[in-house]
Amino acid sequence: MKQVKSLEWLGCKFRWLNTLKIPWEEEYIETTSYERVARAIETMEIRGAPAIGVAAAYGVALAACSSRAESVEELRKELLKAIERLSKTRPTAVNLFWALKRMGAVIDRPYTSVDELRKAVINEAIRIHEEDVAVNKAIGRVGAELIEEGDTILTHCNAGTLATAGYGTALAVIRAAWEAGKNIKVIATETRPVLQGARLTVWELVQEGIPVTLITDNMVGYVMSKGLVNKVVVGADRVLLDGHVINKIGTYTIAVLAKRHGAEFYAAAPRSTIDPETRVEDVVIEERNPDEVRWVLGKVLITVPDVPVMNPAFDITPPELVSGIITEVGVARAPFKESISELLKKEFRP
Amino acid sequence: MKQVKSLEWLGCKFRWLNTLKIPWEEEYIETTSYERVARAIETMEIRGAPAIGVAAAYGVALAACSSRAESVEELRKELLKAIERLSKTRPTAVNLFWALKRMGAVIDRPYTSVDELRKAVINEAIRIHEEDVAVNKAIGRVGAELIEEGDTILTHCNAGTLATAGYGTALAVIRAAWEAGKNIKVIATETRPVLQGARLTVWELVQEGIPVTLITDNMVGYVMSKGLVNKVVVGADRVLLDGHVINKIGTYTIAVLAKRHGAEFYAAAPRSTIDPETRVEDVVIEERNPDEVRWVLGKVLITVPDVPVMNPAFDITPPELVSGIITEVGVARAPFKESISELLKKEFRP
Repeated sequence: MKQVKSLEWLGCKFRWLNTLKIPWEEEYIETTSYERVARAIETMEIRGAPAIGVAAAYGVALAACSSRAESVEELRKELLKAIERLSKTRPTAVNLFWALKRMGAVIDRPYTSVDELRKAVINEAIRIHEEDVAVNKAIGRVGAELIEEGDTILTHCNAGTLATAGYGTALAVIRAAWEAGKNIKVIATETRPVLQGARLTVWELVQEGIPVTLITDNMVGYVMSKGLVNKVVVGADRVLLDGHVINKIGTYTIAVLAKRHGAEFYAAAPRSTIDPETRVEDVVIEERNPDEVRWVLGKVLITVPDVPVMNPAFDITPPELVSGIITEVGVARAPFKESISELLKKEFRP
Repeated sequence: MKQVKSLEWLGCKFRWLNTLKIPWEEEYIETTSYERVARAIETMEIRGAPAIGVAAAYGVALAACSSRAESVEELRKELLKAIERLSKTRPTAVNLFWALKRMGAVIDRPYTSVDELRKAVINEAIRIHEEDVAVNKAIGRVGAELIEEGDTILTHCNAGTLATAGYGTALAVIRAAWEAGKNIKVIATETRPVLQGARLTVWELVQEGIPVTLITDNMVGYVMSKGLVNKVVVGADRVLLDGHVINKIGTYTIAVLAKRHGAEFYAAAPRSTIDPETRVEDVVIEERNPDEVRWVLGKVLITVPDVPVMNPAFDITPPELVSGIITEVGVARAPFKESISELLKKEFRP
C-alpha cells in the first residue's frame, strides 16, 4: 500500500498533490507564496473541506515565512491580509473559516518579537495539520463500528486522503473497517461535474486493494432498487446544528433514494465541519464556472458551447434523511441539536 | 428553425444523421447494407426506441433491395436472416421487435414474384416511418394539453427528433406546447454515460429557440428541492401493461425525486412501445460496454483504466411514481392495466 502525502510542510515551503491531475499523473506542486495556495484552493488543485482548512492555515504560515516586516504590528497586518485573501477562495466549506479563525486567534495574541509571532503562526498551522490526521483516524475508528461484515457501502465524491491532510473522513470509515478485516465492498459514484469519485476515490481504493465498483451518478436509483447497497457514507462540507448536511452536489439525491430503499445514510466529518451558528436558509451554495458542466475536465465539449447551465457545487440534505453524523468523538443521531451539542462539548483523545 | 432529417429513405439507400457526432458536427451516413444499419444501432449512431424501430425496418428493406434472389422463397429466407441479425442489436427497446414483427408479417404473406415481395417490404418500411412521424405529432398534441403556461419541464436523455423518425416523443410534447405559444422552460439532464441530454436534447432545443438549461444528473435533487421543476416528461423504451416504465438509466431516480417534491412525472411514447406480455421481472436490461463509463465519449479517461464498472442502459420506474403515459391516442393513468388496455383498442387518426 502506497502512502500518499496529499499535503506536506517542508519548512517554509508547502507542497501538495495536484488532485486535478489524478488519476493520470502524480504531480506535486511546491510554493512559498500564499497567493499560489489561494489559487490552488480556487482551482481545486487542493479540494475537500478538511484539506482546504489545512492548506489555508499553511498559506498564512507561508505569509509569515516570507514577510520582511520589521515590527509585530506590521507582520500582524500582513498576516491578516493573507487571511482575508484566503477566506475568499471558496464560500461553502466551513473548515476554511474555522482554520483561518484559529490562525487569527494566534495572530491576535501579544508577542515581543516578529520572530516569535512568525514561529507561533507556523506552529499553529502544523498543529492544525497534525490534528486533522489524528481526527481522521478517530473518525475511522468511530465509524468502522457501524460497518458490518458483508456491507456494500456507497460513497459519493471524494472524502479520502485527497480531501484531507491524510486518511480521509468517509473513506477513513471504509479504510478502518477494511483494516479491521471486515469484508466489504464499495460503490463509488463518478460525481460530475469534476468527477472526484471516478478520479480520486477509485484511485485511492484501488491503491489499497479495497473492492470498488464505479457507477455514473444517475445509476444510484438503479443500484438501490436492486438492493445492492446497505449503507451510504459521505463526507460533509458543513454540518448545521440541526443536522442539515451540506455536501457535494448529488448527496441529497442519494439520501432520498437511501431513505426509500432502507439504506442507512451517514455523513463523516470532523467537528470543525460543524457550523453551530448559521441557519439553513442562510447557507451560501457556491455556484461554479458553467464550463465545468459544458466541458468534461476542460477536455471535451459535451454540449452547445454557450447553453445556460446550473453548477451548484453543493446541496443540502435535511436531517430526516440522515441516520447519523460520524465525528472523531462519536456519532450524532436525531434529535441532532441535542446530540451534536453534546459532541461539541466532548474532549478529543487521539 | 432548421428541419433535421434524422432518418431518410432514398430509394434503396438509407441515410441517417450520426447522433454520436452531435453537437460537434452534422455527419450523415448512407448505406445499402443492412449489416451497416445493424452496426449503427449497436454503436448508437442511431438511438432512441422509435428511431431504432424505423431504422431496423429500413434495414430489412435494404436486404430486399440488394438481394439477388431468384425465387420468393429464397428472398424470404434472406429477409428472415436480416430480421434475425437486426433483432440482435439491442435487447431492451420493444419498438425494435415491434417493427421487425410487422416486417415479418409482410414477408409471410403470399407473393407471386420476387419483385412483388421486394416492393411490399420496402413499402411497409416507408409506412412504419410515416406512421412514426404522424404518431409523434399526435403525442405532441395530446401531451401539450397537460403543459401549462409558465411550466418548467425537466427531461432526461433525448426523446426528440434524434430519437425518432422526426419530432420526438417527450420533446414532441415540449415542442407542441411551445408551438401553441405556451411560455415554458426546459431543464435537460446531461445523461451520462453517453450524454444524450447534453449533446442531443440541448442541441435540438437551442436550434428551435426553446429555453433550455443544462444540469448534471446529480443536480436533479437540487433543482427539485428549490422548486424549480413542475413537470417531468421523458420518453420510454418499453412500457409494461401495469404501467412500469423502462427508460434511460437515471429515469427512476428522477421519478422518486419528482414524487417527493410534487412534480408530475409523464412518459411520452408511441403505443408501439407498450409491451403487453412481459412481466417486470422478465425485462432484460442491456448492460453496455464498461468503457462508456470509464471514458467520456471515448475521448477522456476519467478513472483507473480497469476499474470494475456497472453500465445498465436502462432502469425501471414503478407505476406508483408515474402520473401518466402520453400516447398518440390519449393519456393513460392509474390504474394502468385498464387505461393502457383501453388505449390499445383505440383507433389512431393522424
